[in-house]
Amino acid sequence: MIKIGVDALGGDNAPKVVVRGAIEALGYLGDSCRIVLFGNKDSILKEIHDSNCNPELFDIVHTSERIEMSDHPTESFLTKKDSSIVVGFDYLATGKIDGFASAGSTGAMMVGSMMVAKPLPGVLRPTIAIAIPTLNGSPVVILDIGINVDCKAEVLEQYALIGSAYAECVLGIESPRVALLNIGEESSKGNTQTKAAYKLMEHSAQLQKYNFVGNIEPSHIFTGQTADVVVCDGFVGNTILKLTEGFYAINAATNLTSTFWEALNYEKLGGTTVLGIDSVVTIAHGKSTSSAISNMIRSTKHSIETGLIERLKSELSNNSL
Amino acid sequence: MIKIGVDALGGDNAPKVVVRGAIEALGYLGDSCRIVLFGNKDSILKEIHDSNCNPELFDIVHTSERIEMSDHPTESFLTKKDSSIVVGFDYLATGKIDGFASAGSTGAMMVGSMMVAKPLPGVLRPTIAIAIPTLNGSPVVILDIGINVDCKAEVLEQYALIGSAYAECVLGIESPRVALLNIGEESSKGNTQTKAAYKLMEHSAQLQKYNFVGNIEPSHIFTGQTADVVVCDGFVGNTILKLTEGFYAINAATNLTSTFWEALNYEKLGGTTVLGIDSVVTIAHGKSTSSAISNMIRSTKHSIETGLIERLKSELSNNSL
Repeated sequence: MIKIGVDALGGDNAPKVVVRGAIEALGYLGDSCRIVLFGNKDSILKEIHDSNCNPELFDIVHTSERIEMSDHPTESFLTKKDSSIVVGFDYLATGKIDGFASAGSTGAMMVGSMMVAKPLPGVLRPTIAIAIPTLNGSPVVILDIGINVDCKAEVLEQYALIGSAYAECVLGIESPRVALLNIGEESSKGNTQTKAAYKLMEHSAQLQKYNFVGNIEPSHIFTGQTADVVVCDGFVGNTILKLTEGFYAINAATNLTSTFWEALNYEKLGGTTVLGIDSVVTIAHGKSTSSAISNMIRSTKHSIETGLIERLKSELSNNSL
Repeated sequence: MIKIGVDALGGDNAPKVVVRGAIEALGYLGDSCRIVLFGNKDSILKEIHDSNCNPELFDIVHTSERIEMSDHPTESFLTKKDSSIVVGFDYLATGKIDGFASAGSTGAMMVGSMMVAKPLPGVLRPTIAIAIPTLNGSPVVILDIGINVDCKAEVLEQYALIGSAYAECVLGIESPRVALLNIGEESSKGNTQTKAAYKLMEHSAQLQKYNFVGNIEPSHIFTGQTADVVVCDGFVGNTILKLTEGFYAINAATNLTSTFWEALNYEKLGGTTVLGIDSVVTIAHGKSTSSAISNMIRSTKHSIETGLIERLKSELSNNSL
C-alpha cells in the first residue's frame, strides 16, 4: 500500500481546497494507494463531510500548528514542531508515508527536504524540477527552477544527470536529450558558468552518463524539438518559469487561448519535484485550486511508483564525479 | 542636417532588404535628415532603381568588403578595413554621420562601439537595451540584453542610471520607474549579484539619482504596471528576450494573435540601442525585413534628435559613483 502524505494546511485556500483536491485525486489513485492528510482534524472532517465524502477513505493525522507563508522557513520549521509540514516530514523520515506533498511554504518544504529527508549520497545540491508540456505535446523538464540561485558548473553538470534520470524514470522518455540553457548554440557562447558547465557536460556525455545535446537557446525550450531536459541555474530557471506564467496571465486576461497555452496552466502541471533527496517530495503553488492539488497528488504517486529515489541513487553511485 | 549611416550589407537579405527599408524610412524622416548607405555602390544603385526610387535621395559610400555573420567579430573588424561596418564606424568617429545602424554582425557592431565609438567617461561597461511594448501600451526598457553576461553589482547599478536616462530622454517617460529583475519582490530575495545590486540601487535612489521601485519579478515585466526600466545582467536579459521570441514564434505557428503579441513582433521594435558609448549605434536582427530596417532607422534618428548622448554624458558626470 502506497501512502501519500498531503499537507491539508498548505496553500492560500487550505484546508478546503486541499481536501477537495484529495477527494478529486481518489478517483485516479486506485486501491493500492491511500492519502494521509496532515492538519486540523475537525476542519478536515468538516470539509470531507461538506463534500459528501466518506472520511474512512483517508487517514488523518491531527496537527495543531501551521507554518504560514510569511513565516521564516528555517525558524518556523524548528519551532512549530506540531505543524502539518514538520509532522509530515517526520512521517516521511520514519517511513509511515512514501511521499509528501504540499502547496504551503516552499521555503519550509525545502528546509524539511534538506534537514529531514536529507540529500542522497553524492548529491552536491538538491534541486527542484518541473515538467512542462511543449508545443509537440511531450514534456520538457527544467531544473533548477529556483533553489540554487548561485550555481557552480559542477552543480549544473550533476543536474544534467539528475534531470535525465527523472525524465527517463518518471516521464518514460528513453535516452532523454539533455541540453544546457545558454544564450547561443555554439559551445563558445555563454557566461563563465555555462562555458564551464558545457565542458563538464560534454565530458560526461563522452562517458555516456547521459545524452548531452549541447546548448539550447531559450527560444527553443517550448517547441520540444531540441531537448527533453533543460539545465540552468535557479535564478535563470525561475525567470523562465515566471516569465512564462506572466505571458499565461496576459493571455488569460485578454481571452487568448490555445491548446499549447492551456497546457501551460499551472493547475495541470502537478507541481514541482524536489530532486536529489532521499524521499519523494512535491511542492505546488500557494494559489493551487483543487484540481492543482489533485494533480500534485497524482504526480507524487507517480514518482513513488516509478521508483524515482532508487533510480537516482543508482545513477549517482554509478556516475559519481 | 542629421545624417544616419546605414550598413547596406547588414542582415541575411542585404542589400535588397536594407535598401527597401531605407526607402520605406524616407517617408518618415523629413527634409532635415539624410540616409548614408555603406556597401557595394552598384548593388545599392541597382536596388534603388529596381524600387523606382531616385538615388539622389541617398548618400552612398562604396565599400568593397563585408563582415559575415560567421566571421570572428574582433578579427574581422581589424582586418576587413573596407567593410561596410568598419567604414561606417570611421564615418561615425569623424562626425560625417550622426548615428550608425546595422542588421549585420552584432559582435562586429559591438567591437566598433567599444573600439571606435568608445565608452563615455565614467561608464563601467557599455550595454545594449531594447524598448518593448507592454500590455498597457507603454514601453518597457530592458537592459542589458546580451553583452555583459557576467555583471558585477556596480555595473547593474549603473545600468539603472543609463536605462532611466534613455527612457526619459528617448521615450519621453517622466521619472521612469526603474526596477531590478529578481526572483522575488522582497529586498532579501535573489542571488549574490542581485542582492548586492539592490543595496546599491536603494542607496542611489536615496540620492535621487533615479526612481528605483525595487525588485520586479519576470511575471510582471510585460504588464507595464510595475516598471518602465528593467535592469538585469546580459545572460538573464537575453534569456527574457529569446524566450519571448520563442513564444511569439509558437503563437505565429499556431495562428494565435492579439494586439499585445503583434506589438512584440521584432520587426516593429526598431532594433536595440548600444548605450554608454559616445555615439548613437543601433543594431537590428539579422533576419530583419524591410519594415524592421525602416524602424531601426527611425529609432536611430529619434535617439539622435532627442540628444541621447548629451543626456547620458550629463547624467554620468552628475552621478558618478
